[in-house]
Amino acid sequence: MQAKLDAVLAAISPVDQTLAAVGQAHLDNLTKPKGSLGRLEELALQLFMVQGGTPPTADPARVYTVAGDHGVVAEGVSLFPQEVSRQMVLNFLNGGAGINVLAKTAGVQLFVVDAGCVGPDFDAHPQLIRGKVAQGTANLAQGPAMTREECLRALLLGVDLADRARAEGVRVLGTGDMGIGNTTPSTALYCAYLGLDPANMTGPGAGLDKTGVRRKVEVIRRGLEVNANAVAGGDPLGILAALGGLEIACLAGLILGGAKNRQLVCVDGFISSAACVAAWKLCPATADYTVLSHASAEPGHRHALEQMGKKPLLDLGLRLGEGTGAAAAMFLLRGAAAIYNDMASFASAGVSNVE
Amino acid sequence: MQAKLDAVLAAISPVDQTLAAVGQAHLDNLTKPKGSLGRLEELALQLFMVQGGTPPTADPARVYTVAGDHGVVAEGVSLFPQEVSRQMVLNFLNGGAGINVLAKTAGVQLFVVDAGCVGPDFDAHPQLIRGKVAQGTANLAQGPAMTREECLRALLLGVDLADRARAEGVRVLGTGDMGIGNTTPSTALYCAYLGLDPANMTGPGAGLDKTGVRRKVEVIRRGLEVNANAVAGGDPLGILAALGGLEIACLAGLILGGAKNRQLVCVDGFISSAACVAAWKLCPATADYTVLSHASAEPGHRHALEQMGKKPLLDLGLRLGEGTGAAAAMFLLRGAAAIYNDMASFASAGVSNVE
Repeated sequence: MQAKLDAVLAAISPVDQTLAAVGQAHLDNLTKPKGSLGRLEELALQLFMVQGGTPPTADPARVYTVAGDHGVVAEGVSLFPQEVSRQMVLNFLNGGAGINVLAKTAGVQLFVVDAGCVGPDFDAHPQLIRGKVAQGTANLAQGPAMTREECLRALLLGVDLADRARAEGVRVLGTGDMGIGNTTPSTALYCAYLGLDPANMTGPGAGLDKTGVRRKVEVIRRGLEVNANAVAGGDPLGILAALGGLEIACLAGLILGGAKNRQLVCVDGFISSAACVAAWKLCPATADYTVLSHASAEPGHRHALEQMGKKPLLDLGLRLGEGTGAAAAMFLLRGAAAIYNDMASFASAGVSNVE
Repeated sequence: MQAKLDAVLAAISPVDQTLAAVGQAHLDNLTKPKGSLGRLEELALQLFMVQGGTPPTADPARVYTVAGDHGVVAEGVSLFPQEVSRQMVLNFLNGGAGINVLAKTAGVQLFVVDAGCVGPDFDAHPQLIRGKVAQGTANLAQGPAMTREECLRALLLGVDLADRARAEGVRVLGTGDMGIGNTTPSTALYCAYLGLDPANMTGPGAGLDKTGVRRKVEVIRRGLEVNANAVAGGDPLGILAALGGLEIACLAGLILGGAKNRQLVCVDGFISSAACVAAWKLCPATADYTVLSHASAEPGHRHALEQMGKKPLLDLGLRLGEGTGAAAAMFLLRGAAAIYNDMASFASAGVSNVE
C-alpha cells in the first residue's frame, strides 16, 4: 500500500506557471477595470491553470462527505453522543442535512462515504460508498489513533474517490466530514504539523462550554505527548496515523487524488483543512490544486489558516462541516469560470479602455 | 413629487420583531449544532422576518443595474472617458459585462435602467428601462449635482422599479450601478451623511494613481464646501441632491421601494451602499430590509461599513459595481432559504440532540 501511495504522490505535478501570464492577459482584456473582480479573477486563473490552459469549468462538481468515528470521544470531548455520526449518515442519505440542502442549491453532486463509523455496514444506497476501514479510531490520548496500515487504507480510499469522480467527468471536488469528536484530532494535527499550541488552537467544536474546552486542551496535550515520537519524527504519514481520523485521512487522500487528476479541490472548514495540511505535507505541489472555501467559526481555524498562508473565500461563521462551506463556495467557482469564458473583451464590445 | 415620496416613506414599517423568536426556534430544531450555519441562519431569519413569517424564499430575484453620468468628470476624477457609461449600457444589453455573466450564473433576472446617461435615449430593448431624468448631473465641485426636483424624480423612478418587480412576483432585489466617475459623488455622500473625512474615504475608483487620488480628494472637499449649506442643513434629500448622482438617487429609491414592498434588498458595493445610506437616512426602518452583499476593494468602503454597523456577506476584493457583488451574494440567500425550509429536524431525522 505504501507503494501505491508513493505512486500517487509521484504523479502529482505543480501547475504550469507559464500559463499564468496567458490567463491574466485574457482576464485583463475583458470589459472591466483590471483586477476589479478580485478573488473571482484569481479563482478563474487557478481553474485555468489547474485545468492545463483550457477554458476553465467548475462543472460537474462533486462533494464527498466522509464519515468516521473517534476513540477519543471516551475522554468527553464532544457534546453530542457518538451514535450521531451514524444517525447523520442516514440523515445525509435521506436528504435532510445541511449539506444536502446546500449541495442541491449549488447544483453539486453529493456522495456519502463510510470510512470508519462504529457499527455494522450501512445498507446499500445509490449515494453511499461503503469503505469502512475500521470501527472508528483508537483513543489518541492513549496511543496512536490508527495503525500505519489503517491510515494508508483510508488515504487510498480517498484517492479512489477522486478517481471515480474523474471517471465520471467531475472537474471540481469538494471535501466534507462527519465524525462526532473530530475537532479533537484535527486540532492535534494542526499542532503537530504546524507547531501550534493546543491552548490557542482548541475551541468548542459543536458547543462545549469553557470547562469542556479546558478538558479538551488537556486531552490534546496528552495525545501529543503519548504520540511524541511520531510528532518528533516528522513523517507526515506517521503524524496522520497517530493523531488523525479515518475520515480525515480519507479526505487527505481525496485531496491528493484530486491533485493527481488535475481536479480543483474545494476544501471545507476546520476538519477538512487539517486533512489539507496533511496532504500538503505529503506532497507540497498539492497546494496548487486546493482552494480553501471558508474560515470556520472554530477559533483555531484562523491561526491554522495564517500558517497555511492562504486566505479562504468565505467568512460566514460556519462551523457545521459536512462540506457545507465547500458547497457554498461552488457558486463562486462557477461564476469565476463564467467570467473567464463569457465576458466580452473591450474590442468585441466596442468599449473604450483606459485613456 | 415630494408628497409621493412622503407616502412611500410612510408606507415603510419595521419588520415584526416578535417573529425573531419563532424563526430562531425553527432554526434551532434543525439537524445541526445551534447557530452552526452562522450568517446563513441570520440571512434565513432576516428573509423570514422581511417576508412576514411565511416560509422564506429568495426567488425570483432581480438585479437592476442603473446608469447615470456625472458632471464632476470634468475635474479629471476618472480614468475612463465618460462615453464608457453609454458603451457599458450597450454591453449590458448585449450580455457581455460582468453583471450579465454573474446574474446568469446566479439565475437572477437582470434589467438595465437609464436614469441619466449623457446622450440620446437608447433604442428599446426588452431588458432596458428608459427613465432618463437628465443628461447626467451638474459638476458637484461647482454647485449642487441635481436640483431637488431631479433628485425626487430619480428617487421615484427607483420606487417604480421596485413596484414593477413586485407586480411580477419578485421577492429579492439587487442593486447595481454604472456611471463613470461615480465613486466621487458616493464618497462625498459618505462624508456628508456619516461625518467622514475625504482624505480617509477617497480611493482609486477604477484605477487612479496617487496623484489622481489626491486631486479627487480636493475635488470632493470643494464639493462639500460649495454645498456646505445642504450638508449643514442635514436634510437627507437635500444632501442627496447636492452631492449624489441620478443612478445613486434611483438606487436609493429602489431600496426604499423594496422596503415598502417587503422585498429583501441585496445591496452591491461602494456606490450602492452610498445609496443605501441615503435610503436609511430618509427612513431608518429601511435597514431591516437591506443586506450588504460585499466589502468593496475601494478602501473607503470599510470605514463606511463600520459607520453603517453592518457586516457585509462577502469580502472578495470586488470593485466593479454593476451589481456583481449583489449577484454573487444571491446564492447565499437562496441557500439560507433552503436551509430554513428543507432541512430535517432532530425528531424527523431520528438524530439525537445534545445530551
